[in-house]
Order: sequence, then C-alpha cells, then structure tokens
Amino acid sequence: MSTLKDVAERAGVTVTTVSRVINNRGYISEKTRQKVYDVMKEIGYQPNEVARSLSKQHTSTIGVIVPHIVHPYFAKLLSNIESAAAAENYKMIVCNSKEERSNERKYVEMFKSNQVAGIILCSGTVSANEFLNLNIPIVTIECDDALGDCNIQCDNYMGGVLATEHLAKCGCKEIVHFSGVERQVMPADRRCVGFREVCGKYGIRHHEIETSEASYSVMEYLENIKQTLQTYPEIDGIFASSDVIAAQSIQACSALGKRVPEDVQIVGFDDVNIATLVNPMLTTIRQPIKEMAQLAVDAILKKRGGGVMPAKVVLPVSLMKRGTTKEK
Amino acid sequence: MSTLKDVAERAGVTVTTVSRVINNRGYISEKTRQKVYDVMKEIGYQPNEVARSLSKQHTSTIGVIVPHIVHPYFAKLLSNIESAAAAENYKMIVCNSKEERSNERKYVEMFKSNQVAGIILCSGTVSANEFLNLNIPIVTIECDDALGDCNIQCDNYMGGVLATEHLAKCGCKEIVHFSGVERQVMPADRRCVGFREVCGKYGIRHHEIETSEASYSVMEYLENIKQTLQTYPEIDGIFASSDVIAAQSIQACSALGKRVPEDVQIVGFDDVNIATLVNPMLTTIRQPIKEMAQLAVDAILKKRGGGVMPAKVVLPVSLMKRGTTKEK
Repeated sequence: MSTLKDVAERAGVTVTTVSRVINNRGYISEKTRQKVYDVMKEIGYQPNEVARSLSKQHTSTIGVIVPHIVHPYFAKLLSNIESAAAAENYKMIVCNSKEERSNERKYVEMFKSNQVAGIILCSGTVSANEFLNLNIPIVTIECDDALGDCNIQCDNYMGGVLATEHLAKCGCKEIVHFSGVERQVMPADRRCVGFREVCGKYGIRHHEIETSEASYSVMEYLENIKQTLQTYPEIDGIFASSDVIAAQSIQACSALGKRVPEDVQIVGFDDVNIATLVNPMLTTIRQPIKEMAQLAVDAILKKRGGGVMPAKVVLPVSLMKRGTTKEK
Repeated sequence: MSTLKDVAERAGVTVTTVSRVINNRGYISEKTRQKVYDVMKEIGYQPNEVARSLSKQHTSTIGVIVPHIVHPYFAKLLSNIESAAAAENYKMIVCNSKEERSNERKYVEMFKSNQVAGIILCSGTVSANEFLNLNIPIVTIECDDALGDCNIQCDNYMGGVLATEHLAKCGCKEIVHFSGVERQVMPADRRCVGFREVCGKYGIRHHEIETSEASYSVMEYLENIKQTLQTYPEIDGIFASSDVIAAQSIQACSALGKRVPEDVQIVGFDDVNIATLVNPMLTTIRQPIKEMAQLAVDAILKKRGGGVMPAKVVLPVSLMKRGTTKEK
C-alpha cells in the first residue's frame, strides 16, 4: 500500500504539503493541490480517516440531534452548524429524533459507538441521565437547562418583551400568545413571561394558548388559531412563538375575513426563511441562529482541545419590523 | 477491556441478544434492553463502531451533499433520507455545498477517506470526473444524468404538462414560466418542455424567464417576478419551478395590486412545507420526495449487498389543487 511519503516524493512536494492538501488546511495553490490529487489517484493512495480515528480515540465528527429537519428553524440551525464544522474540517451526522425518546437514546448510543467528537442536542425529550458517564462533550441549543455540559439559548424572555412592547406600540388592545408545546419545559417558555409582564404593565387584555405536540410535529396550527380568534373576536394582536405559527395566523385571519395588519397585527419568533416568503412578510423576533451554531461548534472544539466549555450562553434577540405590524 | 461476552454473561443473556441490542435489530423486550444497557454501563463496555468499520472496509454511513440545507426541498429530502437510513441502522453525514465545486470536491474526498457506504448527491455543479475510480456507490437525485451510478428523478416533463394543462383549464390566456438556474443542465429543465408544448397546443401566449444562481442561493426572486409582471401586464398565469418562487409570486402580485387567484393564477413545484404555509395555499406539482429518498438509500444498500443498482428511476408527479388557482 502506498504511503503519504510516496505521494510526496512523486509529486515533488513535502509530506507536510500532502498532509495539508488532504486535511484542507493552510494555503496551497490550486496547481499543487491538483498535482497532489493526481498523484494520489495515480498510485492509488487513500488516506484512511477510519484508521486515524481509531488511534485518536475520537472522530472528527459532530453528532447533531434535532426533532424535525424539515422545520425551518432546525434546517437553518443545521445549515449553520454544518458551515461552522466544515470550516474546521469537522463533519456533521444529523439525526431526526421526531421527539421520540427511544430514537434519541438510539442515536446517543450510536454516537458513542462511533466516537463522535461531540454532540449538539436540539431535541427536548431526552432525559439528563441518558448522558451520565458519556465522556463526550454535549452542547444543547434551546433545551432544558438540566441537559448537557453547555447550554446555548437566545434571550427568550427579552424576545417576549420586545414582541409585546411592539404590539403595544402598534395600538393592540387584546393580544393572544400562542406558546410552544405544553408537555415540555423549554427555555422558550420564558417568552411567555415577558409577554405577560408587558401586557400587565400596559393593562392590555391577554390570553395564552398552548399548542400541542401533535401540531408541532406536522406544523399544523390553523384550526387552533381560528378557534381562538372566534372565541375572542376582539383580539387585534398575536404574538406567535414561531414563524410557522405566525404564518398560519395570517391564513387564519384571512379565512375569517380579518385583514393583516389593519385588523390583526402579528409578531412571530425565529426569523427563518418563511418569515420573508409569506404575504405580508412577518414582523418577528430574530434569533441569532448563525451565532448560536458557531458557539456550539466552538464549545466542542474547545473542550476537545483541553479547554473549558462555558456552562451557559444566552445570546441577544432583536425585533425585525416587516409587514404584519404597523406602528401608530 | 470488557467484551461482548462479558456483557452477555453478566446480563444473563446470549451474545446474540447483546449484539441485537447494540445494533438495534430484531425484537428485544424493553426489560432485556435496559438490563443490557445497565450492564454495559456498569462494566464500561463500549462497542467500537470505528474498529468494526476498519475491518469491514466501509462504515454504516451515507454521505449526502445538498446545495442548501435551508431550502425547504432539500430539508424535506434530508429528513426522508435520514428516516430511510436510520431504519437500516445507517447514519447520515450532511454537507452543504452551496453550489461551490471546491466544496463538493472537498466533501467527496472526505467521504472517501471516511469510507462511507455510499454517496447521495443532490448538488448539480460537481463534474462527473470527480467520481472516477471512486469505488463508492453514488446515487444522484435530480442531477445531470451523466453523474453517478444511479439517477433518481421525478417526471419533470409530466410536471410541466400537468401544471400548464391545469392553468389552461383555469382559463389563463398568457402564462409565464419561471425556470431554474440558467447555468446548469438539470432534469428540471424538462418542466419547461412540457410547459411549451401545452401552451403551443392551446395557442396560449407564453414567456420563459430564467432565474439566476444568485437568486437560488438566497431564495430571492421577488424583483425578477415583479419586473416580469410589469413588462407583460396581461400575464394571468404563473408556472413557477419551485414553491419558493411561487410563494414570492404571491408577494409580487400583492405588491402590484393583483389578486390571487382572481387576476393571476399560480402553480408551484415540489409541494414542500411552504406550499401550505402561505396565503392562499399553493396549487403545486408534488414531487414524491419520500419515495425518492427511500429509493436512494435502497439503491446503496442493494449495491453494498452485492446487488445491482438501477441506472435510472423516474417517479411520477401529481397535481395538488389548492388556493392559488380556480377551475372554470
């Protein structure tokens, strides 16, 4: 079998250069890179990452568990995790838990036996004791604080405050908040705390409607929203805890003959692709998803490099004003 | 280091049972499963998938390259590939090529050195010769026919026919088709062939507008669509080659004071999540994404098992009638 040294000699470069080409590190001219690839092909040299992983005791792979890849929030998160990982020559294994604990456990076991360098968990149902004695750094994003070595969250409370202050400024007199799944304790629950406080401060009538896990899985909230708007016909403001719910709030208003933003104003949460694909475009609370993904990858690499992971990081959110609200 | 046999003895089960628990195969009662897990934890047994891969010469990993994870089409495809792979205890490494050839090449090299069991390629810019002598089965989804060992496509031509026949039935007199990226040869180009034929058959005035790669990357088509509707003010039908373009066609019509479907009727393509999140919901051509993903995974496993992969599979599409069109 041919070796790194054979490739270097034949290509007329140093072993370091060949190694850099293979690992995609440092500056290498396109010409040299091509020469190295050509020689590798010619003499049949194949770097064996699997054999290297065995001696390193871990692979350059990050395992990521999300509930649903198709949810625009998780699709955006995954895309950014992949970019951050790829920049460091790490790869990403993605698992769809569908919020099933048995799936999550199976995936965690799989990550263990595949010796991933770290796990990023964005799925809320797994219990903390699944992770005892795991010996793999675990970063959670928007999960229960009790899980993982490092928790990354956006400032959910401030998101609730910003959204509700904005609806107040837009003149809303009766606001409903469609919150996340009732069964789970999630950092997202704090959006509701901010909402409640601001409504109290201005004396705005308000309602809190929980959404079901079933709705979350299939992204169907339309009936729930319609019913709420029929039960409380004076509602003129909606604070939705996701852009998916906000998009369906536009549909519900339309079905009931209510104009957005003239009759009902809407603020979403997340600022993912659908926020700018619906009509009117959503006013929403932007989560810094790119930064959250980068922090998650950085934390794992830091731990692997012998450094210390932060136990908790809260990132700021911001209000994106678009077409579903109108300031007085 | 403890062995499989140690676990079996201590748990009072056979080695086969322990192996089944670890590989998640066959029926095992929850009680036995828990017992095996407990013993594994107790004696510190860790199945080493990395070592096993070394002897097998390939891993139970499928490498997937998509242009953009955040595009709803690819998010849905990835979700279904993951489910199909997980059902066979395969895992999925996801790479975002962002349509950059250098990224694609880097990812293919990475897949080689990580000895993936197969590659699913959904990204169009990589050239066929990158895959010479690769010795890894490659399945492409909606890519140029020249690439890969097995091509999976939907019936793009029939999609164009169904969409345009429907717009004709809805009474449209002048239809525009917003097609895919001009630079690349893609199976999706055949949607335009079907469109052209049906317009010709009924004598319907028609236009074909290509969209740019830049638009594709950031999913922004709004200005292009608005300009087209201003240049040809008589347009009363739009056949968009993606649901993302169709969603922005609704926005463009709204900005120009045109009602959907009263003044302009719209048919999208894909039937991904945004199709039912916009208002009105999109009439669209449904790609059988779940079946395409399952076929891709099956083809790789078949090849790995010594079987023969189909060289090309074309799956049927169907028309989903919703709110952006209205039959006369």
